[in-house]
Amino acid sequence: MTTHIDSTFLLHGGDYNPEQWQKYPDILKRDYQLMTEAHINTVTVGMFSWSVLEPEEGVYNFDWLDDVFDHMAAISGKVILATPSGARPAWMAQKYPEVLRTNERGEKMLFGERHNHCFTSPIYREKVRNFNTLLAKRYGQKDNLLMWHVSNEYGGECHCELCQEAFRTWLKRKYGTLESLNDAWWTIFWSHRFTDWKQIHSPSPLGDNNLQGLNLDWRRFVSDQTIDFYENEIKPLRSITPKIPITTNLMADTTDLMPFHGLDYQKFAQHLDIVSWDCYPTWNNDTESVAHTGMKVAMIDDYFRSLKQQDFLIMESTPSQVNWHPVNHAKRPGIHRLSSLQHIAHGSDSNLYFQLRQSRGASEMFHGAVISQDGSNQTRVFKDVQQVGIDLSNLAMVKDMPHRKSKVAIIYDQDNMWALMDSQNYAQGTKQYWQTLQKHYQYFWQHNIPVDIISPQTDLSAYKLIIDPMHFLMSTAFMTKLDQYIKSGGVVVGTYISGIVNELGLAYLGGWPQMLQQLYGVQIEETDTLYPKQTNQIFFEGQSYLVKDYCTRINSTGAKVLATYKKDFYADTPAVTENHYGKGQTYYLACRTDLDFLMTFYDKLTSRFKLAETLPLQADSSDVSIQIRENKQTTYIFVLNFDESEHMLTLSLPLVNMLTNQKEQGEVRLESYGIRVYQINK
Amino acid sequence: MTTHIDSTFLLHGGDYNPEQWQKYPDILKRDYQLMTEAHINTVTVGMFSWSVLEPEEGVYNFDWLDDVFDHMAAISGKVILATPSGARPAWMAQKYPEVLRTNERGEKMLFGERHNHCFTSPIYREKVRNFNTLLAKRYGQKDNLLMWHVSNEYGGECHCELCQEAFRTWLKRKYGTLESLNDAWWTIFWSHRFTDWKQIHSPSPLGDNNLQGLNLDWRRFVSDQTIDFYENEIKPLRSITPKIPITTNLMADTTDLMPFHGLDYQKFAQHLDIVSWDCYPTWNNDTESVAHTGMKVAMIDDYFRSLKQQDFLIMESTPSQVNWHPVNHAKRPGIHRLSSLQHIAHGSDSNLYFQLRQSRGASEMFHGAVISQDGSNQTRVFKDVQQVGIDLSNLAMVKDMPHRKSKVAIIYDQDNMWALMDSQNYAQGTKQYWQTLQKHYQYFWQHNIPVDIISPQTDLSAYKLIIDPMHFLMSTAFMTKLDQYIKSGGVVVGTYISGIVNELGLAYLGGWPQMLQQLYGVQIEETDTLYPKQTNQIFFEGQSYLVKDYCTRINSTGAKVLATYKKDFYADTPAVTENHYGKGQTYYLACRTDLDFLMTFYDKLTSRFKLAETLPLQADSSDVSIQIRENKQTTYIFVLNFDESEHMLTLSLPLVNMLTNQKEQGEVRLESYGIRVYQINK
Amino acid sequence: MTTHIDSTFLLHGGDYNPEQWQKYPDILKRDYQLMTEAHINTVTVGMFSWSVLEPEEGVYNFDWLDDVFDHMAAISGKVILATPSGARPAWMAQKYPEVLRTNERGEKMLFGERHNHCFTSPIYREKVRNFNTLLAKRYGQKDNLLMWHVSNEYGGECHCELCQEAFRTWLKRKYGTLESLNDAWWTIFWSHRFTDWKQIHSPSPLGDNNLQGLNLDWRRFVSDQTIDFYENEIKPLRSITPKIPITTNLMADTTDLMPFHGLDYQKFAQHLDIVSWDCYPTWNNDTESVAHTGMKVAMIDDYFRSLKQQDFLIMESTPSQVNWHPVNHAKRPGIHRLSSLQHIAHGSDSNLYFQLRQSRGASEMFHGAVISQDGSNQTRVFKDVQQVGIDLSNLAMVKDMPHRKSKVAIIYDQDNMWALMDSQNYAQGTKQYWQTLQKHYQYFWQHNIPVDIISPQTDLSAYKLIIDPMHFLMSTAFMTKLDQYIKSGGVVVGTYISGIVNELGLAYLGGWPQMLQQLYGVQIEETDTLYPKQTNQIFFEGQSYLVKDYCTRINSTGAKVLATYKKDFYADTPAVTENHYGKGQTYYLACRTDLDFLMTFYDKLTSRFKLAETLPLQADSSDVSIQIRENKQTTYIFVLNFDESEHMLTLSLPLVNMLTNQKEQGEVRLESYGIRVYQINK
Repeated sequence: MTTHIDSTFLLHGGDYNPEQWQKYPDILKRDYQLMTEAHINTVTVGMFSWSVLEPEEGVYNFDWLDDVFDHMAAISGKVILATPSGARPAWMAQKYPEVLRTNERGEKMLFGERHNHCFTSPIYREKVRNFNTLLAKRYGQKDNLLMWHVSNEYGGECHCELCQEAFRTWLKRKYGTLESLNDAWWTIFWSHRFTDWKQIHSPSPLGDNNLQGLNLDWRRFVSDQTIDFYENEIKPLRSITPKIPITTNLMADTTDLMPFHGLDYQKFAQHLDIVSWDCYPTWNNDTESVAHTGMKVAMIDDYFRSLKQQDFLIMESTPSQVNWHPVNHAKRPGIHRLSSLQHIAHGSDSNLYFQLRQSRGASEMFHGAVISQDGSNQTRVFKDVQQVGIDLSNLAMVKDMPHRKSKVAIIYDQDNMWALMDSQNYAQGTKQYWQTLQKHYQYFWQHNIPVDIISPQTDLSAYKLIIDPMHFLMSTAFMTKLDQYIKSGGVVVGTYISGIVNELGLAYLGGWPQMLQQLYGVQIEETDTLYPKQTNQIFFEGQSYLVKDYCTRINSTGAKVLATYKKDFYADTPAVTENHYGKGQTYYLACRTDLDFLMTFYDKLTSRFKLAETLPLQADSSDVSIQIRENKQTTYIFVLNFDESEHMLTLSLPLVNMLTNQKEQGEVRLESYGIRVYQINK
Repeated sequence: MTTHIDSTFLLHGGDYNPEQWQKYPDILKRDYQLMTEAHINTVTVGMFSWSVLEPEEGVYNFDWLDDVFDHMAAISGKVILATPSGARPAWMAQKYPEVLRTNERGEKMLFGERHNHCFTSPIYREKVRNFNTLLAKRYGQKDNLLMWHVSNEYGGECHCELCQEAFRTWLKRKYGTLESLNDAWWTIFWSHRFTDWKQIHSPSPLGDNNLQGLNLDWRRFVSDQTIDFYENEIKPLRSITPKIPITTNLMADTTDLMPFHGLDYQKFAQHLDIVSWDCYPTWNNDTESVAHTGMKVAMIDDYFRSLKQQDFLIMESTPSQVNWHPVNHAKRPGIHRLSSLQHIAHGSDSNLYFQLRQSRGASEMFHGAVISQDGSNQTRVFKDVQQVGIDLSNLAMVKDMPHRKSKVAIIYDQDNMWALMDSQNYAQGTKQYWQTLQKHYQYFWQHNIPVDIISPQTDLSAYKLIIDPMHFLMSTAFMTKLDQYIKSGGVVVGTYISGIVNELGLAYLGGWPQMLQQLYGVQIEETDTLYPKQTNQIFFEGQSYLVKDYCTRINSTGAKVLATYKKDFYADTPAVTENHYGKGQTYYLACRTDLDFLMTFYDKLTSRFKLAETLPLQADSSDVSIQIRENKQTTYIFVLNFDESEHMLTLSLPLVNMLTNQKEQGEVRLESYGIRVYQINK
Repeated sequence: MTTHIDSTFLLHGGDYNPEQWQKYPDILKRDYQLMTEAHINTVTVGMFSWSVLEPEEGVYNFDWLDDVFDHMAAISGKVILATPSGARPAWMAQKYPEVLRTNERGEKMLFGERHNHCFTSPIYREKVRNFNTLLAKRYGQKDNLLMWHVSNEYGGECHCELCQEAFRTWLKRKYGTLESLNDAWWTIFWSHRFTDWKQIHSPSPLGDNNLQGLNLDWRRFVSDQTIDFYENEIKPLRSITPKIPITTNLMADTTDLMPFHGLDYQKFAQHLDIVSWDCYPTWNNDTESVAHTGMKVAMIDDYFRSLKQQDFLIMESTPSQVNWHPVNHAKRPGIHRLSSLQHIAHGSDSNLYFQLRQSRGASEMFHGAVISQDGSNQTRVFKDVQQVGIDLSNLAMVKDMPHRKSKVAIIYDQDNMWALMDSQNYAQGTKQYWQTLQKHYQYFWQHNIPVDIISPQTDLSAYKLIIDPMHFLMSTAFMTKLDQYIKSGGVVVGTYISGIVNELGLAYLGGWPQMLQQLYGVQIEETDTLYPKQTNQIFFEGQSYLVKDYCTRINSTGAKVLATYKKDFYADTPAVTENHYGKGQTYYLACRTDLDFLMTFYDKLTSRFKLAETLPLQADSSDVSIQIRENKQTTYIFVLNFDESEHMLTLSLPLVNMLTNQKEQGEVRLESYGIRVYQINK
C-alpha cells in the first residue's frame, strides 16, 4: 500500500471516454493531439465502461482500452484506471435482478441511471471482483498505470431483503443482544420493543422514520456496508498490483460544499491510499461574492486534506460550467485558473476534469469539457485549460509537498451531523452545522491562518486551538480527550448545543456532563431557540453584537464572563465565557453570533495564543488568500486574489513568481483574480 | 356512566412512563419525590405500554404498573389509566399483519411509529378488547383509579380490503341501494355510475380523489369507524367499571388551533363521558402577539367546552417547549402560569402535561417535561410547574363549576369544513373557514363576552345571537331550525358562501334556498372570488372598510341595506343587510371584511341586543381577558393579562384574589402576563 | 373527409348532459326553452355518457340521446356527437382491468377520474370501436348530426406491459436495430447499452428519467400511440359517415396558454378534419393586464388556426368562471362578449361552452355554465350568453371566411419544446420557450399584423418574415429549408440556443452547423447563462437595452453588427447582427432582450419589409386589437378593446358595424371592453 503517486508532475487531465467514439476515428485521433496542446498528462478511463468492456456476459472487448494505454504512453502520459462498478450493463440487470436496488418504499428499481447497485448482492460483488481481477491482470503491469480509481462517487442505499439481513447482522455484531439494542434505541418508547431480529427494518416512510437510534445506526451501516463493498472491490487490486495506490472520488453536497451527507468519509478515508474528490462550486453566482465561494472551497479542500493529513487529488472539476446546477453559468476569465490553482495551494497534486471530451448525447452531454462538441482548440475554455497546464508544469516541484502545518483545528463529526440533523428539537431550519463551522473558518481564511478540519478521532496534541461548535452528539471518550488536551495547555472553543447526547444518541442524564462543566466552568440552564425574526444582542468589550437562532442560558461556576445578553428574560446573564483549566484555556459561546463578533473574538485569541503566521508579504484585502506548501528546504507561497478588483501586495523581500519565473519586489499589483506563487528557499 | 371526576382538586400532573426507567431505580424513586415537590396529584399511565405489559403474546408484566398505583396512593395521588391501543407491540405486527394499516396507495405499512392500527381488523379489535378487560379487572377496583384514557389521539385511516368492505357496508346501511348512492354522489358525471358495490373504493391518488360525495362519505365513515373502534375498546371498561368515567384525548390542528380535521368531534363527543384535549400553542412566536395566540386558545377551549356543554380537561400540554414545532421556543417567564390558568378559566378541571419525566431516547426525547433529563428541581420549568401546582390548589373550589352561560354562539360544522375544503370552487387558498370564525370570535373575546362554539345539532334556544359564517353545506333541517329560532326572537348573522349544498353535498336547485331568502330578505346574484391582490371597499355608517377574497352580489327583497360596495361592477349594491323576521332579526354579510368592520358591526349588535356582561371590574386593555366560572352561590372571575406590558384594573368593589388570598380594591396593577382570580359570593 | 361544418351559422352552444337529469323532467324541458332564449344552436352530447348508454355490458340505453336529436331538431339546432371513450364505465374496469392505466411507477391505477384508459389495450380498443360503430349506425343519418367529437382532451400515458411492448415495436420500426438505437440514444454513456429489446422500459422514477433520447422518443411514442388510438376510434365513423367531419378538442397549458405539452398537435392535426380547442384564460387576474391576457389568447388562437391553416372551433369555454383555477374569478361585464368575439375574429366558427347546464354534484359542479343550478334566465351570465348569441347571429356571414393571410410566421416546434425542456443545460427556470415566442408575437399583435404559428414542416414560401427563436433541436432538413427560403428572398430572425442538437437529440459536432453559420454570417463562441439577478445591456441605434438570462458570444464572419454588449467579458462584442444571404436577409439575436428592444427592432423590420397592414381605421391604443377575416368579396374588420378604459377609433371612411347594423364614421368612441365588426365590400 502506497500513498505516493508515481509521477514527477502535478496531474492535469481527467475523465476520458474514447469508448463513446469508436465509430469516429478522426475524433479519437484528434483527441490526443488536443490533449498534448492542452498539456494534459493524465487520463481517467474505464468508469461506466462495463457494457463496452463486457458487451455480453463473458464476452470481453479490451482493445479500445489497450489503445488508451498506448496512446498515453506515446505522449508520456499516465492512466488512472477506473473499475466499472458505478453502472452495470443492462444484460446483468436483466439476468440477475438482485443487483438492482430496492428503494425505501420497498419498490424494486428498474435498470437505469447509475450508482444504483445493491451493495450487498453476492452476485454483484462476485461480478465486480471478477471483473476487477481481469483489469488488474491485464493492466497491472502497464508502466503508465498510475492509480486505481474504484467505482465512482459511492452513495445511496438499498433496502432489499439481502440488505435487511446484512443490517441485522451488523446490529447483532454491534449490540450482541436485542435487549442491548432495545436499551440503546430506547424502543420502550411508543411500544417499539423488538423481540425478534426479524422485526427490525431499515427506516422507511412506510414504517419507521423517527426512531433516532435506528436512523443513526442505519446511516452507520450504510457507510460501513459501502466501505465493505469497496473492500470487496479492491481485493484483487491489492493482491495483483500491491504498489498501485487506490482511491475513489468523494463528494461535497449543495452549493455550501458540505461533506457528502450519505457516508462517513472520516472513516472511509482510512481505507483509501489517497483522498480524491470532485469539486463543483458555483463561482460568480448572484447571492455571494467570489471570495465567499473561495472561502467555502478552501474549507472543504482543507477538510479533504485533513482526512488523511496528506496531499489529496482533485479528481473532477469542470473547465467551464456543469449541466446540473439550477443555473449553469460560464466561468469568468481568470476564474478557471484561480480555482484550479486554489486546489494546488491547499494541497492538491492534481487538477483533473470531468471531462476531456464532451459526449454527444445522454444526460451529461452539456457538462463542460476540455474538448467540446465543436472539437475546437480555439475556445476560451480550451485556452484556459492550456494555461492551467502550463501553470502546473511550472509548479511541478510542489508535488508531494505538504500544506503548512495548522495550529488551528475545527472539529467536524459525521455522527454528530447525522444525529443533530435527525434530532427533533431546536429548529430544523436553523441548525446549519457545517455553515456554522464555515463562519468560524472564515476568520482564519481571511487572516491566512491554516486550519485543519478534523474528526473526534484525530490526535489533538499538535494544535494550539481546537474549535468545536455544536457538538450535539459527543462521546465521553472525546470529552476525556478534550480534558487531557486542555490540561496539557490546549485551548478550546465550544458552543451552545454541545454534549447533549452520547454516541448511542441517548441523552446524558443528570444535567450537562460534569466533565464539560469543569472544562468550561459553566452550567447549562436551558437553550432558547429563537424564531427567525427574533434576535438578541450581547455586549462584549464595550461593543454590542447581534445574536440569533440559539441562546443558551448558562451560569458561570468559575469561568470569567466575557459577554452578557442584552435583553429578554436572560438579560445580563453570561453569553460568552473564558475558563482556565489545567495549563489550558476554554471559551464557551452560549449563543449564535454573526461574523462580526467572531472577527473580534478570534482577533483576541489569535493575538493571545500567537496563531498568526509571519509572512514575507501582505495583501491589502482579506479577499486575497495566502496558502503555503512547504518542506524542510523550500516554501511555496500561493497568493490568490478572489476579487474582481485589483489589489496591492507588499513584499518585504524580493521573491520569484514561479508562474513567470520573474523576480518581484516591493509593491506588486495583483490583477483581477490574479495569482502569484512565490518560492522561498529556507 | 358518569361525567364526574372523582377528586376534590383540580388535576395537576400528566403522562408518566416509569416503564422506561425500570433499569434506573434511583430515578423512579426520585420521580415521586419530585412530583410531590411540584404539587403533582395525578399521573396518566399505560399509554403505549403494550410491549412492556405483554412482552410476548399471553405473557404479562403488570408489576411496574401496580407500583404506580401504590406510589400514587402513598402521595394521595390519582391515576388515569390509559389503554395501550395507540401502539401495538412488534410481535403482534409480525404475527398478525392485518393489524397494520394499508395506505391510500394500497401499500401495506410496516411496523413502526404509532397510531397506525387498522381500525377494522377483527384481530386487533379482539386483542384490544381482551387487553382492556385485563386492565379493567386488575385495576378497576383501585381506589385511586380516576378515569379511563382510551388509546391516544385517535386519527388516520386504513385502506385495506377489510376497511373497503366495512366502508361498503356503511354505505349500504346509509343508502340502501346503489341507485340512491349513484344519485347522491352524482356519479353519472364522468361515467362513474356504480353497478356493483365492489366497484366502490376509498379515495386514492391511484383512483378517485375528486368525487365529492365519495370523499365526504369516506370522511364520515372514517369518523364513524374510529368511534366504532373506540366503542369496541370501551365495552369491557363500561361493563367492569361502570362508575369510572371514560375519555380520549382530542387534538387541534396547525398553529391556528383548528379542530382536528380527521374526525367529527361533535359526533365523537357524544360517546365520551368527559372531553379532554391536548393543547400546544406557539406562544411568543414571531408572527402574532401573545394576545392573539391567547384568543386562538380561548376559542378552541370554548369549542371543546361546548362539545358537551360541560367542564373539560386539558390532557396534555407542555411545561416548556415541544420538539415538533418548526421552532421550539422556550416559554417566557409568566407564560406557563398564564396559559395554564387560561384553561381553568375556560372550564378545564385540569392542567396535565405531556410529560412528567422526559424520555432518554427516541422521537420525543426533547419534548418538554416537568422533570427533564437533568432530573433537577431547580430549573425554571420545574419551578413554573410548582407555581401552577400551588395555584391549582388555591383554586380547588372551581372544580366542577361551569363557565358562565353564553348568550352568543358561533356555528362550527365539521361536515361543512370537509365539504367546503373539498369543494372545487372559490379559491382554495382563501377559504379559511375556522380562521374566519376566529375573526368573529375575536370581537367577543376582546369584550369579555362568553361564546359557545356549537354544531348545527345544538339547541339554539338558549342564545341571543347565533353567528353562522360560510355555512356552505347546510341541511334543510338546519334551515328550519334557524327559521324557528329567528321567528321566536333569535338573532342570526350569516355570510357569503352559505346554503350552497345540502347534506349530501348536492347543490340546491332553483336558486338560493327559499327559506334562507326569507330569513335574510335577500337574493343571491353571484359570488365574485377575488385574487389575493384585489380588494374592494364597503361603506357602513359613513365609514369605509376594506373587503377582500369574497364579494357576493345580492339583491334586497325586503332587508334594510346597511352597507354597499364602493367599486367594481357591483358598486353601490348591498354588502351588508339587516332583516326583521318573525320576532327576530338577521344580518347578512355578503363579503369578507377585516376585523375593523366586525368590531364596529358587533359593537352595534352588542349594544342593541344587550350582549355585554356587567362586571365588577374593568381592564384598560383588550389584551386582558376576563372569564367567569360560577354556580348559584359563587362567581370566580379570572383576569388574564396577555400582554407583556403591565395594565391597570379598576375594581368597583373590593375583591379577594384567590391566588394570594389578598383583598384588592380600586386601581390594581396587573403585571406583565399577570393573573387574578377573584371570588364573589352571590 | 370534409373540413366543412354543415351549418349556415356560427355555432353557439356547447356540452350538454341531459343524462344527468333524467329524473328531473321539468329541468330537461326548461333546458331547451332556455337554450332558445340564449340563442343556442348547437349541443355537444355523449361525452362521458358510456355508463348511461351501456349500463351493463351489452345492454344499451339510447332513448335519452335520441331525444336530444329530436329536441334540437325541434329548435333547428345541431348536434355534435361525442364518442364516450374519455371515461369508461365501472363495470368495464372491474371486468377487464387491462383497460386501466399503469402509472410511471408501475402501479396499476384504480377505477376513477377520467382520461385514464390504457391507449394500447386491445380490449379497450375493441370496445371503443364497437361502441362507435353503434353510434355511427344509430345517429349517422340524423339530419342535424353536425360533427363527431372524438373522446375528450386526449392526454396522459400508460406504462403497462402492453404499452411497453408497443413502445418497443415503435422503436424497432424507427431504428431497425438495437445498434442504431444505441447510437441514437448515446447509450454507451453510463453503460446503458441495450442488448435485448426487452431491456428497454419507458421513463420512470424507478428506472431512467435522464436518458434524453429515451425521453424524447417516449414523448413521440405517446403522441403517436394516442393518434393511433384515435385512428382506431374513428374507423367506424369514417366508414359509416364519410361526410361527417371529425374533430377532438385540444388544449392549452397553464395560464400562459402554451400548447398542451403531452402531444404533438402539429402532427395530430393532420388526422383531424377540423381543429377545435378548449380555452380557459384567467381574465382580470392580479398579475397582468386584460390586454396581456388578450395577447396570449390571440397567439394560441393563431396557433390552433395555423395547425391546419383553416378556420377552427372553440369547443369549450366558460360563460363565467371555471372551478379549477387557483382563484375562480367572475368575468367582468363585457369580458364574456369580448373574449367570445375575439375567437371569431381569429378564425373560429364557433363559441361553444362547457357547459350548458351545471351539474348538481361531482367534481365540476361549480364550473360555470349557461344555465346554472338556479335554472335562471336572469343571471348576468345568462344574459351575457344571450348577447353573444345575438352577436353570432349578426356575424353568421363570417362563417368559413378565412383570417387575413399572414406575412409573418413564428416557428413553434413540439419536438424542440420537448428536447429543450428535457435538456440538462442552461437554466431550467428561464428556458421559457413559448413565453419567449409570446414576446415576439406581442409586437405584431400590438401592431395589428397577422401572424401564423407554424411548424418546421410548414411551407415557408408564403411568408415575408420567419421568426425562429430558441430552435435548440433543429434538423438539417429544416436548415436546408431555411437556406432555400432565404436564398429566394425570405427574411429570418433567429436567436441564441438554436441549432444545438439534431432530430435525434444528438449534439452537432464540429461547431455550430455550417449552414447556420452561413445563413447568419456569424460563428458561435459560447453561451453564457445568467443567474436571475444578473443582467447585461446592449447598445442598439444609440439606445441601451437590458438583456438577461442568455448571452451568447458570437463572431461576425460577414454579418453587420447592429448591437453590442455593454459589459462583462464579452463587452463590445456583437449581440445583434444582420446578414444578406442570397436574395434574403437574416437577423441573429444573440441574447434575450426585454420587450422594449423587440419593439424597436421589429419596427425597423416592419418598415423595411413592409409588413404593416393598411387599414381604413386606427385606434389610439395598442390595447385595441384589430383582426380581419375576409374572402374575395368581403372584408370583416374586428375591433376589440382589451382595456377597461374607453378608446377612440378613427375611421377613414364610413363603415357599417355588423353588431348593430349602424353606419359609423370619423371619430368613434370605443367603450370599455368594446367591440366593433365592420364590413367592407371589396
